[in-house]
Amino acid sequence: MSDITTSQEFTREEVGLALRNHGMHLEGLRYPITPIGMHYLLIHFDIPFIDPVTYELPIGGSVRNPLRLTLDEIKARPAVTVPVMMECSGNGRAGLNPRAISAPWQEEAVGCAEWTGTPLGPILEEAGLLDEAVEILFTGHDRGIDDGVEHDYERSLSVEEALREEMLLAYGMNGQPLPPQHGAPLRLIVPDWYGMASVKWLKQITALDKPFEGIQQAAKYHYKSSKEDPGTPITCKTPHALMVPPGIPDYLSRIRHLKLGSVPVQGRAWSGRSPIEKVEFSADGGRTWDDASLGEQVGRYGWAGWYYEWEAWEPGEYELCVRATDVAGDTQPLAPEESWNYGGYQNNAVQRVPVFVE
Amino acid sequence: MSDITTSQEFTREEVGLALRNHGMHLEGLRYPITPIGMHYLLIHFDIPFIDPVTYELPIGGSVRNPLRLTLDEIKARPAVTVPVMMECSGNGRAGLNPRAISAPWQEEAVGCAEWTGTPLGPILEEAGLLDEAVEILFTGHDRGIDDGVEHDYERSLSVEEALREEMLLAYGMNGQPLPPQHGAPLRLIVPDWYGMASVKWLKQITALDKPFEGIQQAAKYHYKSSKEDPGTPITCKTPHALMVPPGIPDYLSRIRHLKLGSVPVQGRAWSGRSPIEKVEFSADGGRTWDDASLGEQVGRYGWAGWYYEWEAWEPGEYELCVRATDVAGDTQPLAPEESWNYGGYQNNAVQRVPVFVE
Repeated sequence: MSDITTSQEFTREEVGLALRNHGMHLEGLRYPITPIGMHYLLIHFDIPFIDPVTYELPIGGSVRNPLRLTLDEIKARPAVTVPVMMECSGNGRAGLNPRAISAPWQEEAVGCAEWTGTPLGPILEEAGLLDEAVEILFTGHDRGIDDGVEHDYERSLSVEEALREEMLLAYGMNGQPLPPQHGAPLRLIVPDWYGMASVKWLKQITALDKPFEGIQQAAKYHYKSSKEDPGTPITCKTPHALMVPPGIPDYLSRIRHLKLGSVPVQGRAWSGRSPIEKVEFSADGGRTWDDASLGEQVGRYGWAGWYYEWEAWEPGEYELCVRATDVAGDTQPLAPEESWNYGGYQNNAVQRVPVFVE
Repeated sequence: MSDITTSQEFTREEVGLALRNHGMHLEGLRYPITPIGMHYLLIHFDIPFIDPVTYELPIGGSVRNPLRLTLDEIKARPAVTVPVMMECSGNGRAGLNPRAISAPWQEEAVGCAEWTGTPLGPILEEAGLLDEAVEILFTGHDRGIDDGVEHDYERSLSVEEALREEMLLAYGMNGQPLPPQHGAPLRLIVPDWYGMASVKWLKQITALDKPFEGIQQAAKYHYKSSKEDPGTPITCKTPHALMVPPGIPDYLSRIRHLKLGSVPVQGRAWSGRSPIEKVEFSADGGRTWDDASLGEQVGRYGWAGWYYEWEAWEPGEYELCVRATDVAGDTQPLAPEESWNYGGYQNNAVQRVPVFVE
């Protein structure tokens, strides 16, 4: 059972999860497409070892024509390559108090890769969904125990969601074969949702005639006000901007030191719900804001670059902040308290970067 | 100033370091060559962003003919590709008590890549070391503050060490251009030492007429019995074996669950000092040991695979251990107490994997 804690220190288990589940170095926000090995990872159990030569993906359940596709057959289908910004729904969890004991993300559970694969919809159409089908279940080869329940990692989407043209079965990342840690040989990509929907190491796809009630669907990944609250499911990424922390860091504290002058500050911003409309920068902890220059978004599901020239001519300590607003009008809360929820999901409170100008 | 603590919990700063400094997933020990993105990372400051087109490496100091080489000029020199097992000298730090407050590695600061580059020796010969030269200093482009001292990360080697034919200036990893996080466009590889010697993002190479006294050389990376002890410098990797934890994990605790039966256990073993002679396996916490089968080592500086068929026909809780011994006769201590030192370096106490057989 997941627990929550008010401790400002972290358990050995949380540190173990931080060592396995790689964060993106925020200086990597310089790259429109995150280099392989810098992209964040969230791996619930172990990385499975799957032979791509003998790999087969069964598509079954409530379908007229069950399929069984080899990797070569999947690669022979029409291919698309799309940049998708991915974020873990637990990003920012360590900034909440009390916090859920799980992956202790600060703000680095992000990345934007170019995924290559084939659209899911035509495969489901070929299998012929029966009228009774209400959800599509995606099961991974990764198996383990969570909250005392042994299971393969698996998540479902409504038939309507699954048939959206953006849904991809991906076998490539940044022009290379999918690396083992990102779901080789085949994974799902759900571009606008948080990462938990993009099931890795696909073992099978099953059309269901009733909603899936597995632990990763019905118990985890809910926005809950308390342990007892049934809550609402986590779905699309909320608006979020991050900056490359300027200056040079202290090794341990990561506090930044800058020289007096004009400081170019850059970063990326995204929202799963709609394109980014505005990015604002603050050098006084969010009391006053100024518009940053917004660059083009890397495709509909990528992220948008932004830039701000900060005039730092007065020595002192500053708290730099950045805030994104999307076209739908959603923006980011100033304080993590406004993002608080029991499981520690989708904390998109504004990033705060303390810097010393000397 | 680094501190030590007896707390069994970890600070927010330690967690931050764990999120940036990626560990290798131990199930990745299955691969003789670690896939890019699974190899461990230790990045003191920020990953610098260096344009490979305008990149130049000056070689100067106590030399007759100072050089300035572009990346193309370096790539035009004779190229070699060698597998090198790399381990952070802080690996296992979190297992010590009290522990130094720094990167809180459990046991995952490992990886074995195929590095491509050109030998360093001929470049130093071309530059013509003067008789006064006693050390070669390698300076990185990564700059920051540690223990209150602002500096570029830099480390030296004695002239004798630097001229060994194994020393490599590497621009490739696993057949690809060096990724940014591993030192692009050019890094040093010191194959038998712990990772801190393999300076990334090389900015310059300087022949010195007296020993280098920088913080990363003279203060950090020493095996010390106390804060006041000057200690001895950390150099070669000590013998170490790790296993792929068998069975399936619990998400948070990572405790393993196995079914009754014959359990294939595999892993890798290495030592910087000499080849591996023997790997032993224990299922009773190190009270009794049995020889594992030892596979071929991946080159002189790679790691050796090992295999053990564990007969687990009795339900219960077990503690699996593995221990390597090298040809020089060095082996691993059973308990972290025997590895204890002030900075938390080279803790090669045997790995202990608790498992439930059901």
